[in-house]
Amino acid sequence: MSSTAGQVIRCRAAVAWEAGKPLVIEEVEVAPPQANEVRLKILFTSLCHTDVYFWEAKGQNPLFPRIYGHEAGGIVESVGEGVTDLAPGDHVLPVFTGECKECSHCKSEESNMCNLLRINTDRGVMLNDGQSRFSINGKPIYHFVGTSTFSEYTVVHVGCLAKINPLAPLDKVCVLSCGISTGLGATLNVAKPPKGSTVAVFGLGAVGLAAAEGARIAGASRIIGVDVNSKRFEEARKFGCTEFVNPKDHKKPVQEVIAEITDGGVDRSIECTGNIDAMISAFECVHDGWGVAVLVGVPHKDAVFKTHPMNLLNERTLKGTFFGNYKPRSDLPSVVEKYMNKELELEKFITHQVPFSEINKAFEYMLKGEGLRCIIHMEG
Amino acid sequence: MSSTAGQVIRCRAAVAWEAGKPLVIEEVEVAPPQANEVRLKILFTSLCHTDVYFWEAKGQNPLFPRIYGHEAGGIVESVGEGVTDLAPGDHVLPVFTGECKECSHCKSEESNMCNLLRINTDRGVMLNDGQSRFSINGKPIYHFVGTSTFSEYTVVHVGCLAKINPLAPLDKVCVLSCGISTGLGATLNVAKPPKGSTVAVFGLGAVGLAAAEGARIAGASRIIGVDVNSKRFEEARKFGCTEFVNPKDHKKPVQEVIAEITDGGVDRSIECTGNIDAMISAFECVHDGWGVAVLVGVPHKDAVFKTHPMNLLNERTLKGTFFGNYKPRSDLPSVVEKYMNKELELEKFITHQVPFSEINKAFEYMLKGEGLRCIIHMEG
Ligand SMILES: NC(=O)c1ccc[n+]([C@@H]2O[C@H](COP(=O)([O-])OP(=O)(O)OC[C@H]3O[C@@H](n4cnc5c(N)ncnc54)[C@H](O)[C@@H]3O)[C@@H](O)[C@H]2O)c1
Ligand SMILES: NC(=O)c1ccc[n+]([C@@H]2O[C@H](COP(=O)([O-])OP(=O)(O)OC[C@H]3O[C@@H](n4cnc5c(N)ncnc54)[C@H](O)[C@@H]3O)[C@@H](O)[C@H]2O)c1
Ligand SMILES: [Zn+2]
Ligand SMILES: [Zn+2]
Ligand SMILES: [Zn+2]
Ligand SMILES: [Zn+2]
Repeated sequence: MSSTAGQVIRCRAAVAWEAGKPLVIEEVEVAPPQANEVRLKILFTSLCHTDVYFWEAKGQNPLFPRIYGHEAGGIVESVGEGVTDLAPGDHVLPVFTGECKECSHCKSEESNMCNLLRINTDRGVMLNDGQSRFSINGKPIYHFVGTSTFSEYTVVHVGCLAKINPLAPLDKVCVLSCGISTGLGATLNVAKPPKGSTVAVFGLGAVGLAAAEGARIAGASRIIGVDVNSKRFEEARKFGCTEFVNPKDHKKPVQEVIAEITDGGVDRSIECTGNIDAMISAFECVHDGWGVAVLVGVPHKDAVFKTHPMNLLNERTLKGTFFGNYKPRSDLPSVVEKYMNKELELEKFITHQVPFSEINKAFEYMLKGEGLRCIIHMEG
Repeated sequence: MSSTAGQVIRCRAAVAWEAGKPLVIEEVEVAPPQANEVRLKILFTSLCHTDVYFWEAKGQNPLFPRIYGHEAGGIVESVGEGVTDLAPGDHVLPVFTGECKECSHCKSEESNMCNLLRINTDRGVMLNDGQSRFSINGKPIYHFVGTSTFSEYTVVHVGCLAKINPLAPLDKVCVLSCGISTGLGATLNVAKPPKGSTVAVFGLGAVGLAAAEGARIAGASRIIGVDVNSKRFEEARKFGCTEFVNPKDHKKPVQEVIAEITDGGVDRSIECTGNIDAMISAFECVHDGWGVAVLVGVPHKDAVFKTHPMNLLNERTLKGTFFGNYKPRSDLPSVVEKYMNKELELEKFITHQVPFSEINKAFEYMLKGEGLRCIIHMEG
């Protein structure tokens, strides 16, 4: 039992006080975990575009003050009542979506959209008592997607924690906590490209490049990377992309450009941008008769997906996924093992490192479209 | 060799001279079949809603004068150059979409959208020479979807003809030439409901009821029939429907009504209306996590399918199909065998019979939403 168990912990957290304003490192109080909750010490966290959307709050509902962060690796500090699966010292990855193991989704082989613990971006409190575990001088600070990893300590529902191999380096596998698993799973679990097929990936950030990596692993013959930022193209070769299309270089819609170079369309496409036009293009660029498009990007709250129904009647399939259809507790440990067995390389996704005190730099890199993942070292 | 082979045949056909105006029985000349074409004597034909849409030409491009009809059974009269699969006397079902057996679609296990012979509703001529085989006093009359079965004789590409068991009664199996196979295949080949699942069928015409029949065969536990015409409900029980929803009886959108009675949505839904709002409802009423919706109805040419992308991200799947994904030449003969083996009942789809001279009555029945299929007897 750690000496802090049952006590309020005072530690540093990066608090977002207002939409779009730099985070401020504050001393916060972190309450002990309640029933089915776990308090963990975050060692490394990284920034995913989803954090940025909700912090910008341009296309999403604002909720402030809030502690963002959902891609991270940590160690269990203490556990609440009823938690038997985890104990202090366990290495864990927190996940924005959970697995209660009891609902119809958790029991389904197809879904990872747990009824109890699925992603809820509007909720800023814990399920158990509808309260936040974070406060500053007694004033609550909201949680984000049940993880809030931009804090030295955080409280997470046990269903949102994957217990992983303690030998796995947390400064690397932390990126599996969201983006990389999401992209990889979107391809391997949802799009399922047959060997030799052609695949288009829209958006060549970390999520998209993990999707491309999945296509490479699946044996795709052509992987067409699509991004409005051509700076992404060079890096993307390392992830299996064989060709590139920048929609801005063409007068006609990018789906038509892709159809032309692929004799009617790609076999699979995976959208990892969050942009509604890219979602529509990603769908319309798949081949009729058998093409499958998978949406991954988090859309603007008012976005509308529009297409002529004939594009569907022509035997195309359209799907979407959260977290690449991986069940966080059941499946994530084995994705970590893929890294340990060298079947999956994570180093190439990590392009920047900053100490916690400079967390705002990670936001700047992402907003400028520079690099892929920036690892934030909590001890710094 | 029939005595008419190589000769122009003069026979009766029901000509649509203008959009929405009653068909007129005229004497037409039917030219002999050219390379890869077959001339057949139609014995029975029935009316599918797709004929009505193009005849009304409200939501579709007009092309007149034209001979409609695409659901029929006939006997080969003569064959053109290069036709080796069929000979005079063979019993055949013409199909609005074809199978060349050589293109990437015909070679794919998934698609039936043959590059050469897929449905083309705007083309009124034969592929071989870009001309019509029908004329009245030398003036061409246009074909419809390569079949034009509202004529005692018609010319069809060999790739659009399924050779069937000559013992099969053509006055029954003619309905397999479009609607019934389409609905049945949409469920069995595309939606694939697992045993025990819940299924919603939108539109309880012949196509929708064949989809319901497919759900019953697949072992669905609940089959919810949705139609704006409550007259359909009684008949629909014979096709496995266990419950009914008329969207007009509810203030809230029908997808919400269905979600309420099914604990979050159905496992599968099949849309057989052609109405864009029904298409959207059919998609949004499937359960998140695993639900699959299949679009079958032929939409208005300017229709736009709209949904919030979050409905997709929540792990729903959206698909569409022509002809229930059956390949006409390879698969249709075995659907006929299902009828011969009494695995499939067709009689209950046939609610009306009229002589050819009264073909306009079939249109009236469909426009009034009365009955399912009306068999038109060419000899009468
Ligand atoms: N579904 C999920 O479970 C899940 C999980 C994690 C992230 N996401 C989402 O995935 C997306 C990608 O995340 P990321 O962290 O890799 O972001 P990122 O910003 O690193 O990468 C996004 C890329 O998309 C490109 N892009 C933007 N608009 C485009 C357009 N119209 N056409 C082509 N390319 C375009 C950008 O230039 C950028 O390179 C985000 O929307 C994020 O919210 C979803
Ligand atoms: N994809 C294909 O290969 C294919 C093949 C054949 C027919 N079709 C299409 O399938 C559809 C059905 O054909 P059918 O011959 O059975 O027609 P039908 O007219 O007999 O049946 C259609 C039914 O849909 C109902 N309906 C209309 N709007 C509705 C709405 N908003 N909500 C609920 N129900 C509604 C009608 O009341 C009617 O009962 C048509 O659109 C037809 O063009 C498609
Ligand atoms: Zn993320
Ligand atoms: Zn659950
Ligand atoms: Zn039809
Ligand atoms: Zn073909």
